[in-house]
This record gives sequence, structure tokens and C-alpha cells, in this order.
Amino acid sequence: MSGREFFTARTVAEALAGFRPARRTPVQTVPLAAALHRVPAAEVLAPAPLPGFTRSTVDGFAVRAADTYGASEGLPSYLDLLGAVRMGSAPEVSVSPGGCVAMPTGGVLPAGADAVVMVEFTAETMPGTIEVTRPVAPGGGLVRADEDVPAGAALVPAGRPLRASDLGLLAAAGVTDVGVHARPRVVIVSTGDEVVPPDTAELVVGQVRDATASALAALVTDAGGEPRVAGIVPDDPGALETTLRAVLPTADLVVVSAGSSVGARDETAAAVAALGTVWCHGLAIKPGKPTLLADCGGVPVVGLPGNPLSALVVFRLVGVPLVWRLAGCAVPPPEPSTRAVLSRDLASAAGRLDVVQVQLREGVAEPVFGPSALLSVLTRADGYVVVPEPATGLDAGVEVEVVLYR
Amino acid sequence: MSGREFFTARTVAEALAGFRPARRTPVQTVPLAAALHRVPAAEVLAPAPLPGFTRSTVDGFAVRAADTYGASEGLPSYLDLLGAVRMGSAPEVSVSPGGCVAMPTGGVLPAGADAVVMVEFTAETMPGTIEVTRPVAPGGGLVRADEDVPAGAALVPAGRPLRASDLGLLAAAGVTDVGVHARPRVVIVSTGDEVVPPDTAELVVGQVRDATASALAALVTDAGGEPRVAGIVPDDPGALETTLRAVLPTADLVVVSAGSSVGARDETAAAVAALGTVWCHGLAIKPGKPTLLADCGGVPVVGLPGNPLSALVVFRLVGVPLVWRLAGCAVPPPEPSTRAVLSRDLASAAGRLDVVQVQLREGVAEPVFGPSALLSVLTRADGYVVVPEPATGLDAGVEVEVVLYR
Repeated sequence: MSGREFFTARTVAEALAGFRPARRTPVQTVPLAAALHRVPAAEVLAPAPLPGFTRSTVDGFAVRAADTYGASEGLPSYLDLLGAVRMGSAPEVSVSPGGCVAMPTGGVLPAGADAVVMVEFTAETMPGTIEVTRPVAPGGGLVRADEDVPAGAALVPAGRPLRASDLGLLAAAGVTDVGVHARPRVVIVSTGDEVVPPDTAELVVGQVRDATASALAALVTDAGGEPRVAGIVPDDPGALETTLRAVLPTADLVVVSAGSSVGARDETAAAVAALGTVWCHGLAIKPGKPTLLADCGGVPVVGLPGNPLSALVVFRLVGVPLVWRLAGCAVPPPEPSTRAVLSRDLASAAGRLDVVQVQLREGVAEPVFGPSALLSVLTRADGYVVVPEPATGLDAGVEVEVVLYR
Repeated sequence: MSGREFFTARTVAEALAGFRPARRTPVQTVPLAAALHRVPAAEVLAPAPLPGFTRSTVDGFAVRAADTYGASEGLPSYLDLLGAVRMGSAPEVSVSPGGCVAMPTGGVLPAGADAVVMVEFTAETMPGTIEVTRPVAPGGGLVRADEDVPAGAALVPAGRPLRASDLGLLAAAGVTDVGVHARPRVVIVSTGDEVVPPDTAELVVGQVRDATASALAALVTDAGGEPRVAGIVPDDPGALETTLRAVLPTADLVVVSAGSSVGARDETAAAVAALGTVWCHGLAIKPGKPTLLADCGGVPVVGLPGNPLSALVVFRLVGVPLVWRLAGCAVPPPEPSTRAVLSRDLASAAGRLDVVQVQLREGVAEPVFGPSALLSVLTRADGYVVVPEPATGLDAGVEVEVVLYR
């Protein structure tokens, strides 16, 4: 139990700004149906204009706008009905002066016309004659052939995870395969002589099942990564070093949930240091102080505290942005949050980030306290409040931002 | 082009409160690794207490608390070091009066001890003798055997999608399979003579590729459903009725993205009415008015407007909660959102819900206007602002809640 617990301690802000691996996953082509939340490696350009033809946005009649000027309820314009446009095909008639063509929403504007009058402002008073009671300007009631997206313009940007509507626009443009960054392969290594697999039926006194690996895998999945649970390594620096050496070549990120004792933490640091460069050992965060960030031959390694609660708090704040970054996304998508009134004072230390679990009750955020050894503190919470690094605490009654779990 | 466009129009609030199918998907057992965001059908109870033994939360020494009373820097207590607890196994020594045992964080409290003194308040001044400089109360430095979760208590509730931390707690309890509702099977039917599959290389003038189905499938996936794109049906009530009849037996929810003309919308309503009960045709929402909600033999059917933008706006508000509900989740998980200042006045009609796409620029929400025929209005937006039903508009400068796309 040495007191030399930390090599270099950093703030969370320093870690987010400074520990930014250059590594990116390779680019692969995936079909649209598998592209949701994936990160395009380059912007995708429109091969042709959209919608591709001048298109009616209303049900009504294609006209020459000039033929409707001055039309009113009292003095309508009368136009000859020359035919009708059918959905999905080119018009078979054109609009000559004094004429009009019936148009469904989404139909192709016939030659000669420059506007569509809404059906609400028309009446077929005599068969074959349409009465127009309101004028329409050129361009009224339609969208231009390139008004949605011009040819060559970006359909979706690079580096931002694809959203549902992006997939719609890509489909509209006929882009059915997209080049995206591969899901980062995140290898999760658990350590600890006391840790046994979750499917262990009967425990010996002193053993605990591995809670952290399952929860970390879920956070990795939500961040677009591909988790691989690599099993449990005993508290032995040689064994950990051997495991790390084996998994590093197949990983884009390695996460070690360290043993919880000081000795185990020192051993993790020693094993990692033997394989690369420790960027920091110790983060100014509560809970989660004994966090390690390292680079092992281009693969980032995150060493997490032994308590599942602390490990998950740190991984959300520091690990999740790393997973997105490895896939080419600099700004992770937003998490749900809400505003609430803090029910009681929260003390903190200046320079340290405090993450406080809270329950929400009718707009009030009530801190859930308890040792960070208790995972139920986390599962009972609706979200968390951050006491930022410069603050020495938060006062009861202030409005706080609660990041919500989902 | 009949004017009889709507059977029964409703507000969105009425639809959310009143259109609540009783249908639930069956329960299936899935392994933990596949259970993220799935909805447990019943609460899962702890088969045994957690952590299962009295456990140290600090590195230090197990003691009888009484032996430390009155200890101070000036007048320490001196205790005999009787041995050490190893991680993951039962203690081999017990603590007798005047004695102590070295403890790692997470170790089992030895018999005879009732507290753990942190190593920071101790020193081994002579080999075999530990000096304690601060008193500890009984129960200090440890968690009880059932302090995380007592036996028989709920590990996770029914009806709330499982979160990362829930999976951790289930793993800790040795629960590696969970009974959850099956993913709702959502069949997506596109209609329209002008609509062709996204992989159509060359379009005839007047044709458009199906944008809506791909985007809807993505929203369904995000809501925990299993989308199935059933293809494109021409604007023909007989054809749509035949398709609906074929897909209903294999669906928990059917979504029809209707043709965009009034005629096509009427045909959708007629086909659905032939197979079940139309609950509403017409929603007081902009965009998205021509929305249809129906029940066809216990399977809810949502008829969406023909414009992709309108269809996606409505499906987010009305369809996504339905998908969650079918899986047994009454309150869908929160969406990301942020507060911003509205850049300009927004007009609306009382009784109608307006959904306005916005871009965010340094805390300002700038509406993205444009015909709802343009899908790019949606892809250029960062999120949307709702003008609620009772309001006649929102004033420039007010703070609004922006629901963010992700």
C-alpha cells in the first residue's frame, strides 16, 4: 500500500482537451438500413438535383401566373381546363395562355405554366372552365427542380452521426450505400482477484460478480462502438501486461476496470506504463479520482476505478467522447437533460469536478447519496448534476442542469 | 379531389391520451448483452443480498471501533497487527480486542471487527504495531452485506427501458438473462404512383425515390422497434387494402406513408376503414394535418402525410410513443433538448400544435422555413420547437425548449 498513488493528476477539462488520440477507425461502406448513427467519413454529395423536376406543393391547377392577376371573388379569372397531370409521369399537356391543367400535390409542372393555384381558390363552374378567385405569383405553389438540394451540394456532412432524416435525404438522392467509419473496437478488461464472471452461480465469501464490464459494454454500444468483454485478469501486473499485449493489436480502445485497492491500481499503472505512455494517472473528479489515461502504441487505454459506480461516471465523461472521436466524430451527439431546482447544498472542492447522482421529483433534483461502492446509488438515480471545476459547491434552490439516463 | 378530407379531426394531446392500444408484444428472454434499452416485463428481484458480505470501502485496518475511541494525533491508539485480508477470499484471522487486520478496499470484514480505519489515519510505527490517529465509529469504512440491494428487493423495475447501470446491477446479482417485451414489429408501407425504391438508378420525370420509409425505419429502430419495409403500393385502394390485409397478421404496428394528394389520402383512409376502425383522420398539427390513426383488429395503424418532412414530424410525436407502448413502456425515455432564445416571432393558431424546425447558433434558435415538401428543411435543422396547442404563437426573444436531433 504505497502512498505514491498518482503519477500525474489532471482535471477533466484538461483530459478532454488534451488527451485526443489521432487514431481513427478505417472507412467501410454500409447500406442505408445499417447507417443510423454511423459517422460519414466524408460529406456525401448529391449526384443530381432534388426533387429533380419543378413540383407542385398543392392540389390545384397549373397556370400562367399572369392569367390570374387581378382575380378576386367578385371578378374571377376564367381558364380553360386543358387536361390533368398524373402522379409519377411527365405531363402530356402544356399550358397555353388562358388555359390551366389539373395538378395533384407532387406532380410535374407542365410546360408553359409558372405557378399552381390552390384548389381552395378555384371552382369548376362549368364543365371545362375553371374559375380562379385569387391571383398567384410566378413560382407560387411549387418547388424548383433543385430547391431541396442542388446537384453537387452536400446531402450530409462528414463527422456528424447520421440521423433518421439524413437517411431519408440519402434515399431520396438514390445514395443507398454510405462510407462511414468502422465502429471502434473497444476491448474491456476486468481485473481483480475478487471478481468473477456474472454467470457464476454461487460465490465464495469475498467474491463479487463483474458488474462493470456489462455496464461499460452498454455505454460503448450507445456511443457507436463495438464492445468486446475480454474477461477477468487477477491482480498481477504480469498477467495484466500479458493480456494487454494480446488485446492491443485488435483494439481501437482498451478499457481496464482496475482492482479497487491502491495496490491493484498501482499494478494497473505499472502494466500500462510497461506498454506505452501514461498521459495521466489521477483525475480531479469525484467519484473517479484513480483514473488512468495512456497511449499504448497509438491505442488509447483508459484505466478506470474499481468501484462500478465510479468507473461508469468516469467512462461517461471521458470514455464516451473517446469512442465517438475514434469514429471520426469530434462532438458527440447530445444527451437528454432537463432543468431542475437543487434540493440541498452540495459541497465540492475548487478545481475538482463533482458528479452527483440525483432523483427528479416534480422539477426538484434530490441528490442520492451513498458510498460509491454501491451500484444501486446509480440505478436509483434519474440522472446526474455536475459541480463544475471552478465551483466550491452549489447552493440549495439554484437551477441546475440534470443529465438524464436513458 | 373531394373536399371531404377528414372524418374526425383531433388534437395531438387527444391522440396521445386517447389512442392507446391495449396490445403488448410477447415476453422473451434475452441475455444481458442484448438487453440494453429493452423493456422488462416484470420487475427483476435480487435472488440474494448485495454485496453479500460486509465489505470494506477503504484501504486501511479492520478494528473494533471501541479500540479507537479518543485516538488523536497527540494520543494515538496502538493496535496489534494480526494479519491481512486478501481480496476475493474469506478472512483467515479475526480481530480480537486491541488488534487489527490490514484490509484492502473491497475486502471481507473479519469476525470481531466492526469498522475499518482509513490507512491515511494510521502508521506502522513499529513492525507489527499500527498507530491509529483518528477514531472510527462502528460501521465506519464499510458497507453492510445487504446495503446495495437486500434479497428480494427489485433490481430493476418493470416497464422502464434498461440502462447501462441496470445491466451492471443485474450482472452483480448473477441475473444474466432478462424477460423483456419483444421488439414491436413495425411494418412500413409506402404508397404513391410517383414513388420508386431508393435504389432506382434513373428516374422518369415525375418519379421520386422513397425517402420516408428509410427515415421511418430509423426512428422505429431508435424507439426499440423492429422495422420492416414492405415496399411501395400504387395509389389504388384495392391494392393498399390487399397489402394491409397481408401485413397485419405479422405486425404490431402498421405505418402507411400516404400519397401526398388529397385523392391519395382519401384512398388510404378508405382502405384502412375497410379493415378496421378509424380513430381519427386529421390531426391539429402543422405540418402533418392529414394524419390517420386506426385500429385494425387490435393492430394500430398510423397513416402519415405524403411529404417526408410532415411524415417524420408526426411519427416522432405520435408514432414513437406508440412503439414504446407496444413494448410495455408507458413513458418513453427522454430526448435530448436544450434551452435557446427564439430569434423571431412564430405565428400559430390556437388549438393547433406547430412544430418548427430550428438551427442553433450560440444559444439562439433560428427557425428554418421552407415548404414541407423539402426534406432538406429537416436535415438542416438541429432540432425543433413546439408551439403548444393553446398558444397563438411565440414571441421573438422568449426562451424555448429545443428538442435536439441525434
